[in-house]
Amino acid sequence: MLSPRSVAVVGASPEPHGIRGALLRLMRKNGFAGALYPVNPSHREIDGLRCYPDVAAIAAAIDLAVVAVPAAAVPGVLEDCAAAGVANAIVISSGFDEDVMAPAGLQDGIAALARRTGMRVCGPNAEGFHNEVDRVTATFSPATDRDAGAARVSLGRRIGIVAQSGGMGFALYNRGCAMGLAFSIVATTGNEADLTAADFLAHLAARDDTDAVLMFLETVRDPEGFVAAAQAARRAGKPVVAIKIGRSAAGRAAASSHTASMAGWDTAYDALFQRLGIAVARDPDEALALSAALLTNPPARGRRVAIVTISGGAGALAADVVTAAGLQVPELAAATQAAIRAFIPSYGATRNPVDLTAGGFVGGGLLRTLEILTRDDGVDQIAVAVTLSNTARVSFDISGLSKIIAERRKPVLFYSYTLPSPFGQDALVAAGTPVFASLETLAAAARVLARPAPPPDPAALPAAELPAAALAVVAATDGPLAEHAAKAFLAAAGLEVPAGALAGREQDLDGIAARLGFPVAVKVQSSDLPHKTEAGGVRLGVTGVPALRAAFRDVLAAARAHAPQARIDGVLIERMAGPGVEMIVGVTRDDAFGPVVMVGAGGVMTELFHDTACRLAPVDEAEALSMLRELRSAALLEGFRGAPKADVTALARLVAQVSRLAAAARDRIAEFELNPVIVHRAGDGCTIADALVVPGPDPRGA
Amino acid sequence: MLSPRSVAVVGASPEPHGIRGALLRLMRKNGFAGALYPVNPSHREIDGLRCYPDVAAIAAAIDLAVVAVPAAAVPGVLEDCAAAGVANAIVISSGFDEDVMAPAGLQDGIAALARRTGMRVCGPNAEGFHNEVDRVTATFSPATDRDAGAARVSLGRRIGIVAQSGGMGFALYNRGCAMGLAFSIVATTGNEADLTAADFLAHLAARDDTDAVLMFLETVRDPEGFVAAAQAARRAGKPVVAIKIGRSAAGRAAASSHTASMAGWDTAYDALFQRLGIAVARDPDEALALSAALLTNPPARGRRVAIVTISGGAGALAADVVTAAGLQVPELAAATQAAIRAFIPSYGATRNPVDLTAGGFVGGGLLRTLEILTRDDGVDQIAVAVTLSNTARVSFDISGLSKIIAERRKPVLFYSYTLPSPFGQDALVAAGTPVFASLETLAAAARVLARPAPPPDPAALPAAELPAAALAVVAATDGPLAEHAAKAFLAAAGLEVPAGALAGREQDLDGIAARLGFPVAVKVQSSDLPHKTEAGGVRLGVTGVPALRAAFRDVLAAARAHAPQARIDGVLIERMAGPGVEMIVGVTRDDAFGPVVMVGAGGVMTELFHDTACRLAPVDEAEALSMLRELRSAALLEGFRGAPKADVTALARLVAQVSRLAAAARDRIAEFELNPVIVHRAGDGCTIADALVVPGPDPRGA
Repeated sequence: MLSPRSVAVVGASPEPHGIRGALLRLMRKNGFAGALYPVNPSHREIDGLRCYPDVAAIAAAIDLAVVAVPAAAVPGVLEDCAAAGVANAIVISSGFDEDVMAPAGLQDGIAALARRTGMRVCGPNAEGFHNEVDRVTATFSPATDRDAGAARVSLGRRIGIVAQSGGMGFALYNRGCAMGLAFSIVATTGNEADLTAADFLAHLAARDDTDAVLMFLETVRDPEGFVAAAQAARRAGKPVVAIKIGRSAAGRAAASSHTASMAGWDTAYDALFQRLGIAVARDPDEALALSAALLTNPPARGRRVAIVTISGGAGALAADVVTAAGLQVPELAAATQAAIRAFIPSYGATRNPVDLTAGGFVGGGLLRTLEILTRDDGVDQIAVAVTLSNTARVSFDISGLSKIIAERRKPVLFYSYTLPSPFGQDALVAAGTPVFASLETLAAAARVLARPAPPPDPAALPAAELPAAALAVVAATDGPLAEHAAKAFLAAAGLEVPAGALAGREQDLDGIAARLGFPVAVKVQSSDLPHKTEAGGVRLGVTGVPALRAAFRDVLAAARAHAPQARIDGVLIERMAGPGVEMIVGVTRDDAFGPVVMVGAGGVMTELFHDTACRLAPVDEAEALSMLRELRSAALLEGFRGAPKADVTALARLVAQVSRLAAAARDRIAEFELNPVIVHRAGDGCTIADALVVPGPDPRGA
Repeated sequence: MLSPRSVAVVGASPEPHGIRGALLRLMRKNGFAGALYPVNPSHREIDGLRCYPDVAAIAAAIDLAVVAVPAAAVPGVLEDCAAAGVANAIVISSGFDEDVMAPAGLQDGIAALARRTGMRVCGPNAEGFHNEVDRVTATFSPATDRDAGAARVSLGRRIGIVAQSGGMGFALYNRGCAMGLAFSIVATTGNEADLTAADFLAHLAARDDTDAVLMFLETVRDPEGFVAAAQAARRAGKPVVAIKIGRSAAGRAAASSHTASMAGWDTAYDALFQRLGIAVARDPDEALALSAALLTNPPARGRRVAIVTISGGAGALAADVVTAAGLQVPELAAATQAAIRAFIPSYGATRNPVDLTAGGFVGGGLLRTLEILTRDDGVDQIAVAVTLSNTARVSFDISGLSKIIAERRKPVLFYSYTLPSPFGQDALVAAGTPVFASLETLAAAARVLARPAPPPDPAALPAAELPAAALAVVAATDGPLAEHAAKAFLAAAGLEVPAGALAGREQDLDGIAARLGFPVAVKVQSSDLPHKTEAGGVRLGVTGVPALRAAFRDVLAAARAHAPQARIDGVLIERMAGPGVEMIVGVTRDDAFGPVVMVGAGGVMTELFHDTACRLAPVDEAEALSMLRELRSAALLEGFRGAPKADVTALARLVAQVSRLAAAARDRIAEFELNPVIVHRAGDGCTIADALVVPGPDPRGA
């Protein structure tokens, strides 16, 4: 489809500015070298090309049909195409599932036709594609209408774009060309009746002319295909960068309505991208910056950035922005500072930022500094903030820079605090490095270069089994499992839960107390009361049988007063947990990507500050530890304000256990919430103080 | 200084590319119409201009001398200037306090000369200034070396720049010109031996040719002057936008070393800027975006943004970015949606984002939509995401847009998802609106347009008095006040503290218990033990005399074990506070700006999440309430998870009281920390459970 030797444009028009006219005009203007067949019964010739009344009339092999006719006529045209042996079709026409007025089944008919005939279809409602290597412009996007005279220097390695929004796909291309990036293919996928973004990703991962892939996603319609394609890209060493829209309620509604799809759950996407090693960008400029950085730099060993500048103000600002992005700007080693000091004026600076000053810059100061810093093991990345606005010269040796960049010892990132002139930017691009448009995008690039390697493929982790006893607990209940049942399920699955017993009647209490000792927690149990604390159904730290009896009566009375209709299973009496740090461990099952495990600080911190770390389940203990390190509240576990260090190992083991259990129970458990999990001092383990488990069949089927 | 009619360039050189040659060359190239006198004993003529051996030889009135000679020669040149009656001088030369090798006193000598002679001096180590209105280019910055042919359309209203970094000052000018902004004056202030950034701000606030001021600050050397200048700008209705560097440790060190200044405390700057209504930007592009937005738009009444686009993907992305910046993208009113629906295709969207689609866009759809939205009271601002890359036409009626913008009913902000062509950008600039370079900067602009009006001038608040009894408490101690003394100080100053008593001996306890009742808190008291909880010196919820005696002995023993040398004042016995939300109220005194009052959630949240709100002291209760609303943990006070609503009014009153006390005690108290303050349910007030007060003289003198 993307490298056709013969193309039919169905609906071609001689009017050069409309959508249908632009298809033919741009294909020719951009130098398509294959056979081109306009199809339109109203014309016998368009712009010197013979025009055919229908596809059948062409009587030659057709690799690709580009279809731009009214929606109602599309099914007939596609049938004609399939009958004529056309291999691939792109449906540019709108008026399908994205249109509330479209006839029911119109788009499904296209999908069925593709399955039936084997002809692959992109769209409908697609903006088409542009193949810059093979010179195929199967789109009306004006972004591909570039004057040959405007061709500028670009980085040799090429980026492929896959976008579910035509406007944004070609906007990425347009903005990327301006910063000197080279592209192979820009593909827009429209409503994805047949081919999805995952298919295009898989194809680009396999193409020799594509070194990285940039995606603009509204949804992922084919989760398994997407995961496989992303893993193929990873194996091929091709970085993938994605913008995923729908993070806000309004954005989600917009993404879902105009492409007639359900946008997925945000956290699941982030966990998926993290697992697949896909770098996530917030907006087009950041996405291009990340792509450019990953394409032209080796990964960084860490977060320590050396800043080199000729303006003290620019250097200090760069330090602020880079630090705010989570990187470090440490003082350079004494030997490094002395080596730089040797060739800069006394009013320069060497600590970090390094301020060469204009005096230290002339005569090769920048390259000497880069040489020194690329060999300093205390520096992971180098950010250079200079001025490249001169329209006729660059004040350092470009071929020397070229050599340093080609050695790929560590990332070197450039920013021009004045706007770079086309001349200045081209010079750096020719040397093999982009110029970042802002310090913010440079910092985002540095962060992505310093990210840890993605975790092992979950498929490589040992599969957990779900014991029959655990299955029995789930089978015995409909609706959410109350705490005692949830803990019975967890225990049956091999997790450690607190010693406890369910008391049905007050006379049970003596025996339970004798077995457990004091103090105990007293908690009313009902599937209808998931928030038992707020219902007054919990008493903690109860000591002595009289107090226990009183607590038993109190929690039952409170529950009945709060929810008279609630079915009450009894009262759970549990040995009180010792002190520790309160955390939450949870799992939510995403409809597309399956269970996502989450860990966060307990109490209000998860809710108010969203301080959580998430991964696709399952994870191993090492990955669970890396989740804990991501938390801002990690300090609580490390022995905050003189508190003892908490048993992080035990917590990581619990997170991994829960994630394996969730993966094994994927087809029957929708949600886990262990809240709080009390993490005791190092060596003393952790306690699942409360637990909620919500069964539910997997919407994707068994 | 900034609009001279006669200028001497001391150190002028015929070499066109060096710093000294560029001064003369740029002054002439940019059309300076006054008298220009090169001064250099080595030349009799430079580029057709008579060259003078020294300033005295000129024998004419000189408004401005631009001095670019070696540092050691600067004092002599300035003496000559003063003797010749030169009114103002700019010292471009480096080699003063920013240079570790500079002779001691060289820069102080310049300051003294200015004071002695009345000649005003900018610099040394300044990059000079550029006055675009009067065509005075007293700088060597290549950013001012613009080809006349490159002149493009610009917004009529002008921005003045004041920068402590020459490189960044002219980078702001360079980037601003590229986005179609007009500037009056770009002034860079160097080491500020005499004139400071505050002087330039005051001057720009008074100039008719300047409508807004953009500042790049490393420090504020003249706090009172700065406050007065910012207030003058506010009275004149001229927005001020500032980048303040030094937010990171590395940035702070860099800012302080290369300008030989102490960069101030971050929080104090933020509090100062907030008080003065100065909008804070993180980087140059954001600063330019905020300046442009404030210059061309009315303030917004709120945070509700309507997004209008022709690309569903761009609209959804804009919704995400705008929401992430703290704004809202609410569904539009039914009547508004119906009005827009009338002229767009069925596959368009009207909820918000509004997706006009290409079909709804042609024939005036954008302007009709803007007309509708500017009249909808449910919309505070409008963000338009379209494509402006066409090099020859803009697909909507520019004069109609011009009219809508001129009406200034509400902010209308434009973004082009493809890069705007010069043609497209110029068309919008001519219509009176900039095109934002990114969705991030557009969102930052929308946020700043929606910010609340700054609080009343602190000078307008009633001054608090410091009672003699309170002064006596401070005078009686050296070093930090232990809790009992701090509370005595607060009580003497009129704040409510818990009932309690200091017990020196065990036999005091009976009487104290009889007076206070139970339960009580038992806390060892020593100025040497500010962290008494971590030393084991606190017992809470003690009930009954035997337990009280035991607690008394325990806390003393723990304190002695923890710090054998600590001087112990006794043990504070206090009535236990009721339950509530734990908050922190504190004051830190900034060396430059005086006391800054802070409020935040207690416990770990302030420390881990930096969830605090700060203001220059004093604040009134209304402003204290607005501080509370800024906190992410505000939800805790509003009755989180079924908890009762807390007494926010009492907390606001306490914050205001503490801020007034801190302002009154500015010359003797360096720090307050009330931690925790327990805020009880609404109507029940709050309790200062613990308090620390650190005396210390004001470093600025009485």
